[in-house]
Amino acid sequence: MRQGGPPPSPSCSSTSDCFPLSPLNTAAAAAAACGSETSDEPQKHEVSAQQAPTLLSRMRSIVIFYLCYLLCLCLSVACVVCVCVWNSRWRGGFAWDGSALQFNWHPVLMVTGLVVLYGNAAVLYRIPLTWGHNKLPWKLLHAAVMLLALILSIVGLCAVFDFHNAKSTPNLYSLHSWIGIAATALFAMQWVVGMGGFLLPCSPMYLRKLLKPVHVWMGIGILLLSIAACISGINEKLFFVLKGNSGGVQPYSALPPEALLGNSLGVLIFAFGLVVLKILSNYEWQRPDSRPEDMAYTPVLQEENE
Amino acid sequence: MRQGGPPPSPSCSSTSDCFPLSPLNTAAAAAAACGSETSDEPQKHEVSAQQAPTLLSRMRSIVIFYLCYLLCLCLSVACVVCVCVWNSRWRGGFAWDGSALQFNWHPVLMVTGLVVLYGNAAVLYRIPLTWGHNKLPWKLLHAAVMLLALILSIVGLCAVFDFHNAKSTPNLYSLHSWIGIAATALFAMQWVVGMGGFLLPCSPMYLRKLLKPVHVWMGIGILLLSIAACISGINEKLFFVLKGNSGGVQPYSALPPEALLGNSLGVLIFAFGLVVLKILSNYEWQRPDSRPEDMAYTPVLQEENE
Repeated sequence: MRQGGPPPSPSCSSTSDCFPLSPLNTAAAAAAACGSETSDEPQKHEVSAQQAPTLLSRMRSIVIFYLCYLLCLCLSVACVVCVCVWNSRWRGGFAWDGSALQFNWHPVLMVTGLVVLYGNAAVLYRIPLTWGHNKLPWKLLHAAVMLLALILSIVGLCAVFDFHNAKSTPNLYSLHSWIGIAATALFAMQWVVGMGGFLLPCSPMYLRKLLKPVHVWMGIGILLLSIAACISGINEKLFFVLKGNSGGVQPYSALPPEALLGNSLGVLIFAFGLVVLKILSNYEWQRPDSRPEDMAYTPVLQEENE
Repeated sequence: MRQGGPPPSPSCSSTSDCFPLSPLNTAAAAAAACGSETSDEPQKHEVSAQQAPTLLSRMRSIVIFYLCYLLCLCLSVACVVCVCVWNSRWRGGFAWDGSALQFNWHPVLMVTGLVVLYGNAAVLYRIPLTWGHNKLPWKLLHAAVMLLALILSIVGLCAVFDFHNAKSTPNLYSLHSWIGIAATALFAMQWVVGMGGFLLPCSPMYLRKLLKPVHVWMGIGILLLSIAACISGINEKLFFVLKGNSGGVQPYSALPPEALLGNSLGVLIFAFGLVVLKILSNYEWQRPDSRPEDMAYTPVLQEENE
């Protein structure tokens, strides 16, 4: 079915990504890769001639990565500050007593855990500073930050369940709650399977090879679910609390400062998700030993600490 | 910063995708690609030996594509049927008179245009049946289906604006509306720029090369915005109409059949988005002449009709 020519060998370039329409500067990198695998002298010279622009392209790639990563960090801080300010200043602060103040933990913990910490843990391996020989500390950090994100998400769910139960409100009926519970349940499953599959020494290589693409796709799916849950949740909450029928409270439709803050939080969360997706989808920003020739993670306490 | 070894040359395989952690079966395809570019006889033999599994892998890739595409089509139909049944059976049908019946066009047209038609137009070039020499009909079909999707989305927005104006309700204050209007505005911009950049013969090649990755990323961003807007919109609508205070209407929290249908529509839309993203992100499923060596679209009435 495929037209003539060699099998695909895309090298996603510095400014491009691995979404299929966008590989740039690919021919040079592919030729260099091919040349390095042959013993043919003229080809080697050809590769050398091509290495200078490739090196420049890589430097450019790293600079663009750090700009993206800086944006990711700024959006992380902005999301957490926004959700904390919203719930402490406009929603009355926090408590754990079944009141509306207990509910306030829900948005704070879900945004911080299921979006910000989750997204930052997902892009951890893309930071060139973590590309040293010993991968173990970064594997443990990835698992630890993900665990912290999972714990915060579960506590965030407990906050809303307790609040609902105290008011005898049913749980898990809205589309927001369906999407949110699916994100957290899949996240818990993903963490357990990831821990068993990639960190335990007894896990065989073929299982890791099978698990890896599923792990990545599940991870991206969970991030998208989290973002959809956050946006629908913020929208729902602002309609609930800004009804404009109690003294001094302006309705949502009048766009009072709280509505502007809540809407902005939604926009920031969406932007954060898009930046994380961009970082994850760029092959050039992948940790070099996650290349196909070394595709599966090495188990903890095996090989990588030698 | 990058560790030793050749520059990256990933060939996203049949079952994997171009998200960086998941290229499988890459070494063989890369070697085959390298071999095909050399004139070295032993290497040619090596390539021939590797061509059989590569061919099998491609056949497998095409079968998996069609399974994914079938799923995409089934989800498309399910989304349109669900949103039509919801608004005709549970919401009283359609009209264009400023009443709630006019509002009912809004979800139907946004889901059909901004999600289903948009997603299907986005994956059009991935269908192997469209990979003939003459790309022009498919380019025009891509642009035409996108235009139809854009028109439906704009009519869908008019429906809700008219309804709000008739009731003197302000427009564009909720997070749902911010996300939705951003999706439609970016979509309109994307269509105009895409038309000018990729279809007009006067558009220069360097501009196409610059535009292509932006076009792809903008396209994915619009799809994600659309899905977030749909999920928040369905959630909001179900809270509005299922208040349980008028005779015979069960509240949303009791999960009446309408709530189940609306929530299921949200889940179907999310699943559709994920399948479209999966199809778009797999390099193997890309139209062969969109490879780097022929990266930019050829203009209408130029080259491809010769």
